[in-house]
Amino acid sequence: MLINGAPGNTINAEDRGLAYGDGVFRTLRMQAGRPVCWERQYAKLQRDCGSLNIPCPSALVLSSELQQLGKTLADGVAKIIVTRGVSSRGYSPAAQSEATRILSIAPATAYPADYARAGVRMHACKIRLGHQLLLAGIKHLNRLENVLAASEWQDRDVPEGLLCDVSGYVISGTRSNLFMLRGNILYTPNLSRCGVAGVQRERVMDWAKQHGVTCKAADFHLEELVQADEIFLVNSVFGLWPVRELAGYRRTQHPMAWKIQEWLNDERH
Amino acid sequence: MLINGAPGNTINAEDRGLAYGDGVFRTLRMQAGRPVCWERQYAKLQRDCGSLNIPCPSALVLSSELQQLGKTLADGVAKIIVTRGVSSRGYSPAAQSEATRILSIAPATAYPADYARAGVRMHACKIRLGHQLLLAGIKHLNRLENVLAASEWQDRDVPEGLLCDVSGYVISGTRSNLFMLRGNILYTPNLSRCGVAGVQRERVMDWAKQHGVTCKAADFHLEELVQADEIFLVNSVFGLWPVRELAGYRRTQHPMAWKIQEWLNDERH
Repeated sequence: MLINGAPGNTINAEDRGLAYGDGVFRTLRMQAGRPVCWERQYAKLQRDCGSLNIPCPSALVLSSELQQLGKTLADGVAKIIVTRGVSSRGYSPAAQSEATRILSIAPATAYPADYARAGVRMHACKIRLGHQLLLAGIKHLNRLENVLAASEWQDRDVPEGLLCDVSGYVISGTRSNLFMLRGNILYTPNLSRCGVAGVQRERVMDWAKQHGVTCKAADFHLEELVQADEIFLVNSVFGLWPVRELAGYRRTQHPMAWKIQEWLNDERH
Repeated sequence: MLINGAPGNTINAEDRGLAYGDGVFRTLRMQAGRPVCWERQYAKLQRDCGSLNIPCPSALVLSSELQQLGKTLADGVAKIIVTRGVSSRGYSPAAQSEATRILSIAPATAYPADYARAGVRMHACKIRLGHQLLLAGIKHLNRLENVLAASEWQDRDVPEGLLCDVSGYVISGTRSNLFMLRGNILYTPNLSRCGVAGVQRERVMDWAKQHGVTCKAADFHLEELVQADEIFLVNSVFGLWPVRELAGYRRTQHPMAWKIQEWLNDERH
């Protein structure tokens, strides 16, 4: 673990990241000692910092620190947290506060191989995500809704839960973005009111563009989702998981998901 | 500062309080080395921990640690943070995680004396609080909305901002609860969808009960608020501030607020 570039595993207890969740983060794969899809990951980190007006550490500093961590574990999952840093008591962010960066690496969770091929079963979470236009899309540190969602079910054979918002629209998994295929069109939830717009979602949208497949960000309900021809989940850690079971929906074949999965697995894309 | 009872100023960088804002907090006055209104403060902390299923440290442990801090600074502002503690990566809270407690004390901010008597000017914040029924009322560590609100204005002569929710209802100040007097009835915003239900709000409601004044938690808009006979803000640090200016509302006399303020200042209540 590197805290502001120095080996360590503690942070200042007055950091605003702890006090208010005043920061953002990224979770990404490391392969052969290097961060996968680094340009996209950094661009997203920078956008998220910008949205909260937190000074983003430079790409050079972060990538060299990640490579330093990569020497201890070449293939794993890295996490980057950037907070607004330490500042005096009170919500108002002091203009001069210096960002805190926390970089860590851990072995990747070993998921059953059939998650990526046959697909996963999903729990339909009861919690409804609230709307906050100023925070929608950002991967910030205010994640209590995700924590509450993830504590709704225990079944270890169900690795993800579906999140809907207060209007009943489908938003995402608890830690992944979602797509559905209906006919020849891909749909992914509109994330302008809540949810996190991840890097892997962006890559799938690029795949669609490059392959002449229409992909729309849209509002749709669970009732429409379970009518889909295919459903799949993406994130930067597990890649792509087809959904094989969710609230009455059952599929064993995921041809489109498998095709996209193959493309995503090539990190040059 | 005491971290889990030991002097220190750092926490484990893998604490869920940092990773997800997975915890709750209290800010309270210390007088003569002891926490003010301790029973109410502890009861609220315990309720908030309970809502998130975080094991709450005992009242005995916390009050003795606060008194230990009170020896270094007899009159000040204490802060108690309780997080779900350190646990493995992922949103799902591990059942066995041990809570982290972080206690600190700092000198009270010296506010201009006329804030408590003549009252304060308030900024009407543009941000709209999102609804989350499972988190409403809890003083948890997911406070980015408050941070964004507090960064909306800079005027140092305006010490508080008014928060409304996505439905346009008045909720609170950025760090205080709000009351309005209309005729003989006190109203305070309904906090069942968002906002923090603080200890000082509870005390004002008790004052009303004891003095035969009707006090209702209700939904009302800014347009109704500015028609009030009196508006005042409360929290456990500054006590009670009348509002003298807000979006066209102007008052110089605050007889009801002054009466309640006097009662609140007696900590036996």
